[in-house]
Formats: sequence, structure tokens, C-alpha cells
Amino acid sequence: MGTSIEDRSWRGLKASQRLAQVLARPILTGALREGDRMPNEQEMMLRYEAGRPTVREALRLLEARGLIVLKSGPGGGPIVRRPAKESLGESLSLLLQVEGASFGDVADARRALEPMLARRAAERITPDRLDELDETVRLLRENPGDQQVFTAQNQRFHTLVAQAARSVVLDVFVSSLKALADGVRVGVTYSARKQAAVANAHEAIVAALRSGDPDAADAAMREHLEEAERYWRRRYPDLMGRPVEWTY
Amino acid sequence: MGTSIEDRSWRGLKASQRLAQVLARPILTGALREGDRMPNEQEMMLRYEAGRPTVREALRLLEARGLIVLKSGPGGGPIVRRPAKESLGESLSLLLQVEGASFGDVADARRALEPMLARRAAERITPDRLDELDETVRLLRENPGDQQVFTAQNQRFHTLVAQAARSVVLDVFVSSLKALADGVRVGVTYSARKQAAVANAHEAIVAALRSGDPDAADAAMREHLEEAERYWRRRYPDLMGRPVEWTY
Repeated sequence: MGTSIEDRSWRGLKASQRLAQVLARPILTGALREGDRMPNEQEMMLRYEAGRPTVREALRLLEARGLIVLKSGPGGGPIVRRPAKESLGESLSLLLQVEGASFGDVADARRALEPMLARRAAERITPDRLDELDETVRLLRENPGDQQVFTAQNQRFHTLVAQAARSVVLDVFVSSLKALADGVRVGVTYSARKQAAVANAHEAIVAALRSGDPDAADAAMREHLEEAERYWRRRYPDLMGRPVEWTY
Repeated sequence: MGTSIEDRSWRGLKASQRLAQVLARPILTGALREGDRMPNEQEMMLRYEAGRPTVREALRLLEARGLIVLKSGPGGGPIVRRPAKESLGESLSLLLQVEGASFGDVADARRALEPMLARRAAERITPDRLDELDETVRLLRENPGDQQVFTAQNQRFHTLVAQAARSVVLDVFVSSLKALADGVRVGVTYSARKQAAVANAHEAIVAALRSGDPDAADAAMREHLEEAERYWRRRYPDLMGRPVEWTY
């Protein structure tokens, strides 16, 4: 199977794309680390027997993928970077804007994804992670009305549940939605009373996860997100129709 | 709400990032179209009262996001491009590779997402789309053993179901997984007998969608994907452990 697969994926690629893949390998395998300096244009032309335009385009491709930064000036050249999960969030928000998505569409996707993640988490969660979830609830309770603590611990709670589902792919999706789905970024605030209600909802979800009951975890997360959406619709009637906007 | 939101998202951005957002707006709103030429570096420096490094970095950012292509040489400059859904697939496969994801992880995410999409599609699908789904099944039946028809109509079927769920966000996610999740790309082939079994499974899903029964659609899609995974595990025992690899 080996060679034929290689052949298949290499056929039809431009020289610069092939070179980009060769250059990407040591970064992706971890042989090169964040901050490491790569050979400059001249050295690459010699080493890979490639013309300057090919090398230049290959480096551009790597930069576009977030795998390197090109420093200009003397002593410059390609520096290795590790793409962050959040970088996908940027590409995603851009694409969603091009596709005409609204904040409501993002909320809708969260309501579809997160109950399913809670369901999976109920079967796979570890005691350590349950303790961490407890802590997020405790911090919410100990800081009533504190907007910053609320934002941080609310995001942390949802991230922990997504991670507990142990799906690297779905985790990447939910991470990329996180910034978009967060009402705080578009000006939503939560009263102390509302924050207490969220803490209660989170507590119910943790209880379902602790008992290892997938149906209960699914239902508790669903109810939580539906309640959040009702709150947004009531207090910020325009919010759901707002287009997703590309930001850093 | 308007201004404070603007302030919030602009604070802390570099000049080049702000310029990139300004330049992106007419592309994202459609005022500029694919292939349109934008002002060159010199003109932008004058128009936005920005230094060359700022303009250059802003253009690089837009290029990295797939919103423009920078043509070099005389008569070159920034040309508008429209980012495709598939571009997210590229960023995703790269990120998944960095995160150490396997083909099995992708299959796992599909098994989580697609039954849920089928469930939603059952409530929202139109007669036109049902006809299109019928056609994909008919083409599979009329071309037994044809690998190319099978690949095309199989992908088309799953794409149509995802689109029928009418969630632009989930549609983007599933589109981005499509290339990764496709066994054909990594060398999987399907016998005529297996292809006929897939046609039957697809037909059962279409029947559930036509009857508008979310539970039946969810169950039929789930059974179909589980059967596919059993087939892969049996015929290609190494496949599920294979790391996701970045390709164009």
C-alpha cells in the first residue's frame, strides 16, 4: 500500500507544493521546534536543487499555513512556528463570514455539538477532570457578578467537557467556535443572578457526568444551551441575526 | 452597542492587523469580486497613510487567509480571491497532524456528526434534495464496480445530507473532514458487492429522510457509518491508526 499512496497524493502537485510538504515534515513531526531557524532561500535553492521562485512560493505556502514566520532584513529567514488551535478559529470565522453565517448559526452549531460531546464525556471522563469542573463551578459561586471570572470559568467549563469527550477532531471544532460563540465578545453581559443560574446549570451537568449517565449529560447540556439562547434572544433581540465577523 | 463593540475588538491590534481588516471588508461583503485587482503597495501607503512594512504585512495577512493572491513582477499586486470551504480542510488537516490525530479519530468524528446531521435533515429536507439523493443511489446501482462513480456519488450523498441539515457551520465542518475522511485517498477500494451494500444503506437513509423521521434517519446513518468502519477495520487493519497527513 505504501508507495502507491505516496504516488497518489504527489501526482499533480506543483514543485513548490511538493517542496512545501518536504519542508513541513520536520516541523510536523516535531524534529524542528517553535523558534528554530530554517535554512535561508539561497541554501534551500542549493539543497533542493530548486529555483528561487519555487523556494519562495514554498515558503509562502508554509507561512500561509502558520508553520513558519518569514523574518525580513539581514539575519532574517524562515523561523518555525507551531500552528495553534485558535488559528483554525480565524480561518473558520473568515469562511463563515464569506458564507453569510450569523451568530445564531454558531449558537445553533453549539447546540448540536455540545450535548453530543457531553454524552461522550460521560463515558470517558476521569476523576481529575471532574475535580477541575467542580473548581470552575466553585469559582463562579465565589465571585458573584464578576464578569471576568465568569467569562474565564464559563469558557473553561465548556472546553473541559469538550476535551473529556476525547475526540481530537471535535475538540478542534469546538475550540474554533469558542471565540465566535462567546456572547461576551459582542457585548453580552451577565447579571449576578444570571451567573448564579449558569453555575447551577453547570453543576447539574457535572453531576450527570460524575454518575456516568450519557443520556442525563446530553439532556443537561441541551437544557443549559437552550436556556442561554432564550436569555440572549430576550435581552439582545438583534444578536442572533448579526453576521459573524472576522477578527483576530 | 455599535461603537463599543468596535472599540473592544480593535483595541490591542497592530496597525497591520487593523489595515488587513479594513482591506478585507470589501472582499467579504462582495463589493470586490474574485479576480479584481486591488491598489498596489505604493497606492495603499498613500491612501491609508501607512508605512511600507505595515502595508506589506497587512497584504501578507490577507494572503495567508486566502483572501488575495500577491502577483509579483511588473503589473503584479494583490488580486482578490474567494476562500473555498476546502481551504479550511487544509488548515484542519495540518492542525490535526500537529495534534497527532489518526484516520480513526476522523472516522470517529464523522460517526458523531453525521447521524446528528441526518436527524436535522429529516426535519428540514426539501423534495428537490430528496430527488438529488435518489439520483446518487441510482447512479451507484447503474455503475456496479465503477470506482470513480462510487467515490463521486458517495461523497455527493454525504454532502447533500449535511447541506439538508441547513447549518452553515456544521456544513463547513463536514466539508473540511470530507477529504480527510475519504478512505479512497489513502488507498481503500470497494468491491462491486460492497458498493451495492453501500447503495442499500444510502437508500435506507433516504427513506428515513423522506418520511421525515429524525430517529430513523439518525439510526440509519449511524448503522451505515458503523458498517463502513467495520469494513475498513477488517480489510485495512492498519488504516485506523494511520496519522492524518497534510496534503493539498
